[in-house]
Amino acid sequence: MLKKIKMKENIEKFMKSAIDMSIESVNNNGGPFGAVIVKDGKIISKASNSVTLHNDPTAHAEVNAIRMASKKLNTFDLSACEIYTSCEPCPMCLGAIYWARIDKIFYANTKNDAKKVGFDDSFIYQEIGKNIDKRKIPTIQIMRDKAIVAFNNWTEKENKIEY
Amino acid sequence: MLKKIKMKENIEKFMKSAIDMSIESVNNNGGPFGAVIVKDGKIISKASNSVTLHNDPTAHAEVNAIRMASKKLNTFDLSACEIYTSCEPCPMCLGAIYWARIDKIFYANTKNDAKKVGFDDSFIYQEIGKNIDKRKIPTIQIMRDKAIVAFNNWTEKENKIEY
Repeated sequence: MLKKIKMKENIEKFMKSAIDMSIESVNNNGGPFGAVIVKDGKIISKASNSVTLHNDPTAHAEVNAIRMASKKLNTFDLSACEIYTSCEPCPMCLGAIYWARIDKIFYANTKNDAKKVGFDDSFIYQEIGKNIDKRKIPTIQIMRDKAIVAFNNWTEKENKIEY
Repeated sequence: MLKKIKMKENIEKFMKSAIDMSIESVNNNGGPFGAVIVKDGKIISKASNSVTLHNDPTAHAEVNAIRMASKKLNTFDLSACEIYTSCEPCPMCLGAIYWARIDKIFYANTKNDAKKVGFDDSFIYQEIGKNIDKRKIPTIQIMRDKAIVAFNNWTEKENKIEY
């Protein structure tokens, strides 16, 4: 019972840290999002959205936190880590979380809350669910016969690092 | 007519460049993916997948190329750019392409080709389409009442850089 209370306290502490990052970020002219990555009860990385600050459209809080944690732990595999994010991840960040093999996601604001303040994650969720020919961005397949060579070489390669 | 032939030649030249990056990448112990970003008929950035080389699970070819192009053009807005990628973008990369407002996507290998050589983008596509409570990664909402403060502050902030 005590252990359970302690766990709940920790979860709230980590989320508070992500939320603090999101509030600070607004003060520092970044986007209103923060994220924290935790392993074995310790914070590994904390980040906020720096898209406009660093001219990097991929620099969402979650992506930044994943990049920092991977660097710190010296691995592309963040299994056994949890992510605490002040807002439900967008498809880019959710994809990054899956590739990083993060164990658990805690979030606070929803994608609809984000939409209301001008961040249209829901639009991208809809687009990703559509067939390629129905999406807003024209997407055209060419030259598969040439590109498949890289995949064939990959298959044949010995001692490759898979992920 | 001549213009059309020229356009087709250019498209094939840019895709060849992306494919060359993917083949080189396998030789250099990176993942078998390459991407090129083009604006006004000129290559702005070229990148390959460096997930294992740089211990960065977000370092897919498309994300790397977007980050490089944004840095070079000094903007988070890559509208009027095209991306040439040796493989159909995964959800993370597709999200990044939408956030970057790229105009057009050319791709060669498909997500099913990628699956066959061990990169399970299709699994992440499936997961993203599911409701939160049906996904493989446990995803829990907490503390929205605290997190919404950042969004309220954002709404009230004057002279903010929106994107």
